Amino acid sequence: MTSIPFFSSIVFYTLRLYFTFLFTLVSSFSTMLRNFFTSARRSFFTSLGACALSSSAPFSVFKIGRLNHVAIAVPSLEAAVKSYETTFGAEVTAPHSLPEHGVTVSFVRLQNTNIELLQPLGEKSPVAGFIEKNKLGGIHHICLEVDDIHQAVEVCKKNGVRCLGKEPKIGAHGKPVMFLHPKDCNGVLIELEQCHA
Amino acid sequence: MTSIPFFSSIVFYTLRLYFTFLFTLVSSFSTMLRNFFTSARRSFFTSLGACALSSSAPFSVFKIGRLNHVAIAVPSLEAAVKSYETTFGAEVTAPHSLPEHGVTVSFVRLQNTNIELLQPLGEKSPVAGFIEKNKLGGIHHICLEVDDIHQAVEVCKKNGVRCLGKEPKIGAHGKPVMFLHPKDCNGVLIELEQCHA
Repeated sequence: MTSIPFFSSIVFYTLRLYFTFLFTLVSSFSTMLRNFFTSARRSFFTSLGACALSSSAPFSVFKIGRLNHVAIAVPSLEAAVKSYETTFGAEVTAPHSLPEHGVTVSFVRLQNTNIELLQPLGEKSPVAGFIEKNKLGGIHHICLEVDDIHQAVEVCKKNGVRCLGKEPKIGAHGKPVMFLHPKDCNGVLIELEQCHA
Repeated sequence: MTSIPFFSSIVFYTLRLYFTFLFTLVSSFSTMLRNFFTSARRSFFTSLGACALSSSAPFSVFKIGRLNHVAIAVPSLEAAVKSYETTFGAEVTAPHSLPEHGVTVSFVRLQNTNIELLQPLGEKSPVAGFIEKNKLGGIHHICLEVDDIHQAVEVCKKNGVRCLGKEPKIGAHGKPVMFLHPKDCNGVLIELEQCHA
């Protein structure tokens, strides 16, 4: 008589494990399928874009990525960091000087992106003129991520968006960047940054 | 003789299912633990902030949330939408008029946040003056999310950050909002928006 409950418990656990396994398998498979279709859709549009290269109509061969950061130029980094920390309870990174870029930076870590606080550093700082005009500080630029900076620059140029520089340069975060002319971007200075170095 | 391979295959599959189940269980448990500690840490810091209410030192009883959007005022919404769609390959929502807020808006859907494109609407538009000064357009404000708008406003006031208005109002997205004075925020107009309505 004891063999029946023993046998049924064995069957029960085996079935339970079987369904858990099945569930894991189905989840993995659906993720795989989703990734496959996302990738296929992207390739399809990229190929469409590549075709459009030969025409003179406006086109895009890339899809803009994440907002990497909003850059705020400030006259005093110390005061700005304190303000974000105390008033907003934000996590802010320690000031980091980048003499080759003419700025000292701190990042306000938000849940989905960063605010980059910029203080001019040195006589040739690209932010000094901005602070001269805006004594209190202000939003200096926004940075959008792209997969391929050279492709993005080419698309921008073909669409009449001027670039500030001939070739992408290595930006403050060690990744290739290009700034776009504010006059061609609704008065906004946009930095394009390649996601990977 | 055939019973041995049969038996070993049963053992093999049972063990395989067992380990899959074990892995799922461990993953779920670690996620649960992580969530628990994140929540506990948050509660701890909130309680610390609540204590600080009774002192006169700068304090924060809230932690700033996500960057909800970067708002860009534009002279022509149609041209701006076209530009983001064609050059950047971005997904942009159809223009939506909000006469009670004096703007027509479209959202550029980025992967982690939104760019809100604003065109003045009507004679009393709050964006009209900005466009008058910045003919090409420009960044108008950034919107940061908070859990509790009343608590956030109280903290801002206690830290000397002026609010543009006495009480929070229902914003363009149907949620309570408050704008902070740019002079107290490094020259940046900041909109605080409560996550939930």
